[in-house]
Amino acid sequence: MKMTIPESTIHRMPQYIKVLEYLDEGKVLFVTSRDFETHIDVNPSIIRKDLSYFGEFGVRGKGYSVTGLKQELEKIMGLTGHRTIIIGAGNIGKALTNYKGFDNIKLKINAVFDNDERKIGSMINTIPVLDIKTMKAYVESENIEFVIMAVPSSIADLVVDQLIDSDIKGIINFTSKFLSVPKRIKVISINIDTKIMEMFYFLKKSRMK
Amino acid sequence: MKMTIPESTIHRMPQYIKVLEYLDEGKVLFVTSRDFETHIDVNPSIIRKDLSYFGEFGVRGKGYSVTGLKQELEKIMGLTGHRTIIIGAGNIGKALTNYKGFDNIKLKINAVFDNDERKIGSMINTIPVLDIKTMKAYVESENIEFVIMAVPSSIADLVVDQLIDSDIKGIINFTSKFLSVPKRIKVISINIDTKIMEMFYFLKKSRMK
Repeated sequence: MKMTIPESTIHRMPQYIKVLEYLDEGKVLFVTSRDFETHIDVNPSIIRKDLSYFGEFGVRGKGYSVTGLKQELEKIMGLTGHRTIIIGAGNIGKALTNYKGFDNIKLKINAVFDNDERKIGSMINTIPVLDIKTMKAYVESENIEFVIMAVPSSIADLVVDQLIDSDIKGIINFTSKFLSVPKRIKVISINIDTKIMEMFYFLKKSRMK
Repeated sequence: MKMTIPESTIHRMPQYIKVLEYLDEGKVLFVTSRDFETHIDVNPSIIRKDLSYFGEFGVRGKGYSVTGLKQELEKIMGLTGHRTIIIGAGNIGKALTNYKGFDNIKLKINAVFDNDERKIGSMINTIPVLDIKTMKAYVESENIEFVIMAVPSSIADLVVDQLIDSDIKGIINFTSKFLSVPKRIKVISINIDTKIMEMFYFLKKSRMK
């Protein structure tokens, strides 16, 4: 397959993979674009256009093989087994060490980093909590490409300064702060409040109907 | 202003509001589309198109008033002061009661619901933990329009069944489960793994450069 898939399609790919996982768990063997439409909040014509990029995997009259398409999309997205660290052993950090979804995307949490001496040296769900002072050396020796940042917003800038100083290529940002980093570092924010704003808008619209 | 703003623009609005908040904190008075471009991972031509819908707020040669545009976008998005409940008093539920971002979007957490008798009757950061059996009655008497679901995936379906039985209009879904609900209920999922998949794709691409 040629890698000429548009950026906007790539953004929807994880959603398609989610639907395929769901169908796979339910022992569904084939999926059509119509099936996707019932499971996903994207315009049907866009779904059909997106799927046309993977046309060669389709079987005429049957649709796409669920496991086949899933494997192909996972390959395109680079789900080849990544390792990462979590920065922050607070509630969010703890919840993430326990997060089942990481297995599905072949992600392993190597360690959690914190600055609280009562936490350093302990374990959270079999994952060691290490001293944040050793983070930069760890990232380099273990070849960690991206980190998950789950620290209080008040110390986000401090942590970011340390990350800028390392070889890190990406940050998954759980803080509500807007992170200012050099272009070489990709920040993907999990913005709870932006998602909730979308809900407000939906509620407002449904009230006007 | 006419409400003919496209859906895709609406999806980017929370990001614009985030940038405006950031600039406002830094005491910046005016913002141009160029300023947005440095803060947001969206194609510049799309940003300019989106902002053109709010053209009347712009001042020639100066750009948009940061506070003025922020207030206007908040009004469009329906940030008028909402109340909600959190279902699940585990790590994610606890982290959310402490989440600072909710103040910015004028959201109040009324209560947390759980089925664990050791937790029921306690408080998390001044918010009471109530018995999940009383949730349906609470939602109705308090006129709760949407809930935040932060329960283990294994009991997600059970909770969803209760929600379907109530007047709830929306679910913010923190579980990694795909929720199957009637069309009248809007589900917005905060999918950690889909965001991390985007990071994998970025890393794969940057390795190929």
